[in-house]
Amino acid sequence: MKKYTDIYDLENIPRTIQDTIQLKKNPHQYESLGKQKTLVMLFFNSSLRTRLSTEKAAKNLGMNVMILNINNAWNLEFEDGTLMNLTTSEHVKEAAQVLSQYADIIAIRAFPSLKDKQKDTSETILKSFEKYASVPIINMESSTAHPLQALTDAITIEEFKTTAQPKVVLSWAPHPKALPHAVANSFVKMMRTLNIDFSITHPKGYELDSEITQDTPINYNQKEALENADFVYVKNWSSYTDYGKILSQNTAWMLTKEKLGAAKCMHCLPVRRNVVIEDAVLDSTQSIVIPQANNRTYAAQIVLKKLLENL
Amino acid sequence: MKKYTDIYDLENIPRTIQDTIQLKKNPHQYESLGKQKTLVMLFFNSSLRTRLSTEKAAKNLGMNVMILNINNAWNLEFEDGTLMNLTTSEHVKEAAQVLSQYADIIAIRAFPSLKDKQKDTSETILKSFEKYASVPIINMESSTAHPLQALTDAITIEEFKTTAQPKVVLSWAPHPKALPHAVANSFVKMMRTLNIDFSITHPKGYELDSEITQDTPINYNQKEALENADFVYVKNWSSYTDYGKILSQNTAWMLTKEKLGAAKCMHCLPVRRNVVIEDAVLDSTQSIVIPQANNRTYAAQIVLKKLLENL
Amino acid sequence: MKKYTDIYDLENIPRTIQDTIQLKKNPHQYESLGKQKTLVMLFFNSSLRTRLSTEKAAKNLGMNVMILNINNAWNLEFEDGTLMNLTTSEHVKEAAQVLSQYADIIAIRAFPSLKDKQKDTSETILKSFEKYASVPIINMESSTAHPLQALTDAITIEEFKTTAQPKVVLSWAPHPKALPHAVANSFVKMMRTLNIDFSITHPKGYELDSEITQDTPINYNQKEALENADFVYVKNWSSYTDYGKILSQNTAWMLTKEKLGAAKCMHCLPVRRNVVIEDAVLDSTQSIVIPQANNRTYAAQIVLKKLLENL
Repeated sequence: MKKYTDIYDLENIPRTIQDTIQLKKNPHQYESLGKQKTLVMLFFNSSLRTRLSTEKAAKNLGMNVMILNINNAWNLEFEDGTLMNLTTSEHVKEAAQVLSQYADIIAIRAFPSLKDKQKDTSETILKSFEKYASVPIINMESSTAHPLQALTDAITIEEFKTTAQPKVVLSWAPHPKALPHAVANSFVKMMRTLNIDFSITHPKGYELDSEITQDTPINYNQKEALENADFVYVKNWSSYTDYGKILSQNTAWMLTKEKLGAAKCMHCLPVRRNVVIEDAVLDSTQSIVIPQANNRTYAAQIVLKKLLENL
Repeated sequence: MKKYTDIYDLENIPRTIQDTIQLKKNPHQYESLGKQKTLVMLFFNSSLRTRLSTEKAAKNLGMNVMILNINNAWNLEFEDGTLMNLTTSEHVKEAAQVLSQYADIIAIRAFPSLKDKQKDTSETILKSFEKYASVPIINMESSTAHPLQALTDAITIEEFKTTAQPKVVLSWAPHPKALPHAVANSFVKMMRTLNIDFSITHPKGYELDSEITQDTPINYNQKEALENADFVYVKNWSSYTDYGKILSQNTAWMLTKEKLGAAKCMHCLPVRRNVVIEDAVLDSTQSIVIPQANNRTYAAQIVLKKLLENL
Repeated sequence: MKKYTDIYDLENIPRTIQDTIQLKKNPHQYESLGKQKTLVMLFFNSSLRTRLSTEKAAKNLGMNVMILNINNAWNLEFEDGTLMNLTTSEHVKEAAQVLSQYADIIAIRAFPSLKDKQKDTSETILKSFEKYASVPIINMESSTAHPLQALTDAITIEEFKTTAQPKVVLSWAPHPKALPHAVANSFVKMMRTLNIDFSITHPKGYELDSEITQDTPINYNQKEALENADFVYVKNWSSYTDYGKILSQNTAWMLTKEKLGAAKCMHCLPVRRNVVIEDAVLDSTQSIVIPQANNRTYAAQIVLKKLLENL
């Protein structure tokens, strides 16, 4: 593996899931693999879980970690040929090449604006670093993808499933703010690689990118969609067609204990209680959001391990 | 020891003081104790000494350290049952449980507002993490307590005392800003456990929580109180009864060389020169504020050591 | 070596350059030298390259690194005898002494205001830490000097030179913001110690401190100055005589491929493309700005190594 910017970078997903479950049994078994190797984590947006779990994963492998929070002091230019006499002070060409000399792997978080669909979907920041860096790039959530989360989710389903081919439903839920599509996109991609019964439920107008969902069944009736589910993955996202807009705050779409039935409830966190998911779900044993968050460490660690082995 | 949120968590204070003095002679003697263990430090307020000394202490024990500065990007909810459709984006229930999976020990700094006495004294942040985290919690200064500082102070007195039962006086001093009671509270608690001559001096209206001071002698005449003292511990705090208010900026309460007599001068730092303590004291050999600050490292290290041994 | 605040702290510059080139061949050969030693990095101003390269250098030597970004929460007082009842909360006397107990080496970045020439040239922050700290100080760019950059530059010239005594020209270039003199100053000092053909070109009014440039040839005609150069070091700085002012934004001073001739182009980065240096230069093999930035790590590492050996 040469990079991890999308789940398709994984050469063998079922095998990777099994490898991660093995790794988790003794997270320190490869602690000399990353010796004398440095991970640089670049945050264009703030992070809690991703930062801590990825940093922990790197240290479990013996790596050094250096963290850069990008702020106004470092305005990067991404356009070619620009006369840089305004606000940008460094071109990504230099930045990526220089960082590649200090880092053995570069991990990047860069959220979408949710204002400019074309700009967001072009993934300028991530793709510029991919283009100019000479070391592997890890996507710690970009405009359109969150592949570390999706790998986490697949591992969690594997651990908690009680039937060979569980029914998994991705359910939209309301949220007061306009949120990105990255988590939902990567989750859909990942679920479509697994041999399971997968469907999506959301209000009309919340269709995700059809190039990602393809022929995944979509049901506009949440109650019907969730029937007999084994896993309900709850997530809000803003409209993709009416880009970045909040079309509905219909509280009826909140996940309740009643709608959950006997299924397990998953969420990438942070979650707004009693808006996205009700207390009765989150405080029950059917919620597996906490062990799911724990798997962030091991998803990051298996990715780092595979990249280190290929350096 | 299962946590260190208050000095009473120490099982045997005199023994802990002696253990720390031993540890200080060779701070690296337990450098494999914390191997593969992670300390997460959460700062709801900024920190210099506490951050560096605690980080250094953890690394002396071979621990990994991850630091999170909590800011507006991460608004935690502490109330139960809230419909989280406003500013808070994550409930402490999830935050504490998730962090407990990335950390073996969590250290927290969370200052009081000094506006709402009941809210401050309820120690919502610290107690919520205690309640929901599954790993030991260290208090790096909360609304009402600063137990790492108090342990530091006890160690410093033990090192510098020249009589078996020294006279120690906690003296209020003026300050242009309203300051918390945490340092004074924990110092009083700590001194009351030692077999020494301990008293407090401050202007009327600056009485600390009487449940903490209990029968400690209070003298409103600073000059009289300091007579024949061996140690004068200087500290400003705002009024506790007229909560958070500055009742006096009387410069006559500044500690001077004359009032200090032959005593040693202590302060937790940072100290405003010529407001709290005059230059002539701080620049003299009677000031032990610098070696006192050095003991912050070893106080943190003995606490981490005891917690690691109980994991 | 007891500190590194100016290039003259290096006892033998040619030998240091050769030592660094040796070190670079195996950066991990001294990885136990810094064991149990701590570098504290204090940033009064933001940093990308300096922070990452110095942190990496320290870790290559096995050191622990603790980073403090100084902000409004920590207002230091530098004047003696001040009555500190206003904004400053801690005197550098205490700060430097306390940090010296947590750190084995302290590295400091503190830029000039470019408003007050006397204040800037007095180097208050750096010199105060030098005065009160009891551990070695490293200058990570102060008002008037950037000696880590200058050592980097000398190493880079040594690596890329094809004649024994290359012609090196420091060329001013336009920039939309008023920039400090530190990089230019230290570069001039360093070049003057080498057995090379060194000169400076800039518009009238941009003369650097004559105590630094001394008898270095200055040519106001850039084209003429660059003829037959082996290395052109491009850098903007604001006026030193009309302190901190931008006297010219004359785009004719931008470095072009034509003016560069057959020379190598150097710059400390970040560089504004098509303002300071044109794309055609930066995208050509004559630009050595990327390997130059890589040498930041080894310049920092040789300095740390020499300081560690003298602890």
